[in-house]
Amino acid sequence: MKAALARWEALCGSSAPLRFVDMNLRGAGQVMFQDNPLSGALFLLAIAWGAFAGGTPGIFLAGLVALLIATATAIVLRLDRDALGAGLYGYNALLVGLALSVFIAPGPERWAFVAIGAVASVVATVGTANALKPFELAALTFPFVLVTWILLLASYGFAGLSGAGLPSPALSSPFEPAAALSAGLLDYAKGVLLSVSQVFLKASGVSALLILAGLAVNSPPAALFAIGGALLAVVTAHLFGAESALVTGGLLGFSPVLTAVALGAVFHKPNSRVAAYAAAGAIFTTITQAALNVAVSPIGLPALTAPFILVTWMFMLPRRNFDSDAPT
Amino acid sequence: MKAALARWEALCGSSAPLRFVDMNLRGAGQVMFQDNPLSGALFLLAIAWGAFAGGTPGIFLAGLVALLIATATAIVLRLDRDALGAGLYGYNALLVGLALSVFIAPGPERWAFVAIGAVASVVATVGTANALKPFELAALTFPFVLVTWILLLASYGFAGLSGAGLPSPALSSPFEPAAALSAGLLDYAKGVLLSVSQVFLKASGVSALLILAGLAVNSPPAALFAIGGALLAVVTAHLFGAESALVTGGLLGFSPVLTAVALGAVFHKPNSRVAAYAAAGAIFTTITQAALNVAVSPIGLPALTAPFILVTWMFMLPRRNFDSDAPT
Amino acid sequence: MKAALARWEALCGSSAPLRFVDMNLRGAGQVMFQDNPLSGALFLLAIAWGAFAGGTPGIFLAGLVALLIATATAIVLRLDRDALGAGLYGYNALLVGLALSVFIAPGPERWAFVAIGAVASVVATVGTANALKPFELAALTFPFVLVTWILLLASYGFAGLSGAGLPSPALSSPFEPAAALSAGLLDYAKGVLLSVSQVFLKASGVSALLILAGLAVNSPPAALFAIGGALLAVVTAHLFGAESALVTGGLLGFSPVLTAVALGAVFHKPNSRVAAYAAAGAIFTTITQAALNVAVSPIGLPALTAPFILVTWMFMLPRRNFDSDAPT
Repeated sequence: MKAALARWEALCGSSAPLRFVDMNLRGAGQVMFQDNPLSGALFLLAIAWGAFAGGTPGIFLAGLVALLIATATAIVLRLDRDALGAGLYGYNALLVGLALSVFIAPGPERWAFVAIGAVASVVATVGTANALKPFELAALTFPFVLVTWILLLASYGFAGLSGAGLPSPALSSPFEPAAALSAGLLDYAKGVLLSVSQVFLKASGVSALLILAGLAVNSPPAALFAIGGALLAVVTAHLFGAESALVTGGLLGFSPVLTAVALGAVFHKPNSRVAAYAAAGAIFTTITQAALNVAVSPIGLPALTAPFILVTWMFMLPRRNFDSDAPT
Repeated sequence: MKAALARWEALCGSSAPLRFVDMNLRGAGQVMFQDNPLSGALFLLAIAWGAFAGGTPGIFLAGLVALLIATATAIVLRLDRDALGAGLYGYNALLVGLALSVFIAPGPERWAFVAIGAVASVVATVGTANALKPFELAALTFPFVLVTWILLLASYGFAGLSGAGLPSPALSSPFEPAAALSAGLLDYAKGVLLSVSQVFLKASGVSALLILAGLAVNSPPAALFAIGGALLAVVTAHLFGAESALVTGGLLGFSPVLTAVALGAVFHKPNSRVAAYAAAGAIFTTITQAALNVAVSPIGLPALTAPFILVTWMFMLPRRNFDSDAPT
Repeated sequence: MKAALARWEALCGSSAPLRFVDMNLRGAGQVMFQDNPLSGALFLLAIAWGAFAGGTPGIFLAGLVALLIATATAIVLRLDRDALGAGLYGYNALLVGLALSVFIAPGPERWAFVAIGAVASVVATVGTANALKPFELAALTFPFVLVTWILLLASYGFAGLSGAGLPSPALSSPFEPAAALSAGLLDYAKGVLLSVSQVFLKASGVSALLILAGLAVNSPPAALFAIGGALLAVVTAHLFGAESALVTGGLLGFSPVLTAVALGAVFHKPNSRVAAYAAAGAIFTTITQAALNVAVSPIGLPALTAPFILVTWMFMLPRRNFDSDAPT
């Protein structure tokens, strides 16, 4: 594997078009913190599989186009070479493209939104990174959530864009116990897998396996923490009585997956204390996902990965206060 | 009094269990900025009185358990000894425990939420303190509000938790003049007292007197500013025509009480300019309480002490711009 | 022009009352970033024209009173002389006064709110400037939006204040294509002009021309960018199918006008790259205006200039990452 990557790196070094491809692959990889073109390729394959299997190839295409536009924008703006080479200007745009095409009906205006969103995500990525410097925090997927929320909200005000896939705006209402918890064990096992694939806004077991493979080729602990986060999310949501369709569809688990990977395998070196801390983060992210789903319901938005961002920032900020053998 | 506290301090120095008790008492005291175990004991007594008199001892118990869990969590995480000894990791958890048991119906899931909320409040407290360092601001009760809002919102999504005490989610609607202002002078006097006790989410005159005693034993100016803030809140709310049940129940006054104490007697040395500034802060907090009550109504949340936090931060940020004889 | 301004400056130097007048004129000018008493005088004239022509002189009066109170407050608080002399403590209050009298029905409580809002806007202005120092961002009209939102929300809770001009609180609903786009070319030309005048919450072509004159006397590029921003807003909103009454009334264009002026002629030296960047910002601000209109609709608020603030901050934060010949 390492030899193949080294050869690829050498090829990219001597070819500008290949380097551009590499940047975009790494951009896909960075959705789950993997600065590795092979991880990115597997993630893109997972998205493509989910999109084509679901009969909506436009979703894959929109994600890809947004990714390419963002990388090109970063080049035109002459942004930091290292960050560009690591794919850090691309992952938010890829997610923007996917989310816009999941929630908005097809049409030329949607393509305009994908392009505008891709460019805006680059500006937002640089801006967020600068704004967070005093706090020593990473931007995570905040630029994606910010730009996508703006564009999805705007779709309510523009006749050219129909938010056909958006949740209906509604006042919060307590979830009735009667409707909960009718799923079986196998359904919940499926929920664990789909929690992984929903990171890319898709419910597909095959995609989930491709994503886990993409993590494992670059960081086996990341793959383990992803599964662990998904498992904790499904168990937590089930014990508190979440709607079983949400649990088994992975819709309460994708944020905890990201939190677990971030806290457990990216920003700290994995050990038992770190694992306990990441587990606490994943559990709290599951609850926060349920909370933010309610918080954004009157304005008819999906919460996206906002719970992951909020909880991961909250759990990262105390780092410097921990003993040296605690998470650092 | 001082001799007794010195003896208590000496006792704590030689006994780890007593030191743990002391940390928790100071944690209770820090809800109103008092780093004093006697203040904390009186505050806990006030909560206990309100809870038992109201036939809901579970509220007191939940607050106490959350406080103990938070202090233990801070010890396990080996957080800063000085802050731990001053009770700074406990006060948010105490409030989380009280709020969860006021707004959510009893049951095992509520206890799980109390425990999760207590642990999360410690992480949020350290995180908030670090995030605010560049701005030289204190965390105040922000960790309490953040964690409680997340848990209360999540209760809408979980069948195991019934937010029986939560306000019904509703669109804002203008308050009709006809319904206002039917209370008498004595009712408004009661509103002043209850504004103090509502800091701990309880409407009880006896509790209010115990709380004022708890302030006075450590800082007589704090007790005066608390009464002054409550008085200003009741008068302001009455003059603008707030619903009299809110005014006389202390529900528009608890945040102004905290703002007045914070601006007048904690972060500045009291003098006439400081008193005027604190009074302006208390008046603006009353208006902000009315505002945030409306802002969170579509998602069915109580505003908690968010108005206090917002206005106190807003009034603290300009400190360095004031002349030396102005509030500093 | 320059000679006249120099003579005025000399006059102010020898007369405290004239200096006070000068501070207030510059305060009006700073609504659109112009530290120039003549610009401010023309802006005030524009407001007065709009108010008297519309039969609502109280709006002009409330703005003026708020401006005067804010300047006096800044003097009493002994705030920074340079900022005071440049009108930086006044522009938010002027806008607070205008907005309160546009959205709240007349009465003594409204005057109390204007006074409270003016004082609070000064505190918020200093606080915001301090909070933004680590990010090297300007406060823009954030203090105006924060204070006005609080006061408008509070009007729902107070019988003494009737938010007669506020939008009805409502859940988001998709804008129906059928209702869109019935306006003619001339209507859209009017939309460009009104986008400029709506910066001061007024729909008046004469006011718009006076405002453009006020910009041109101090900074011809600022006037050009204002027109450019308005044009882009009208075109963008039209192409995506916004409600034509909003477009032709200038209600989607005032924030883009401010963004274009800020990014193109205030914080960067104008050149072709800067113009492209400002244009991108103006387009994204138009979309963000549509978005935030939806976001605040359940709580019955106007979005005010929040889209301008959000997008301008987002586009200013990356400055230090751009090459030296890019926007700096």
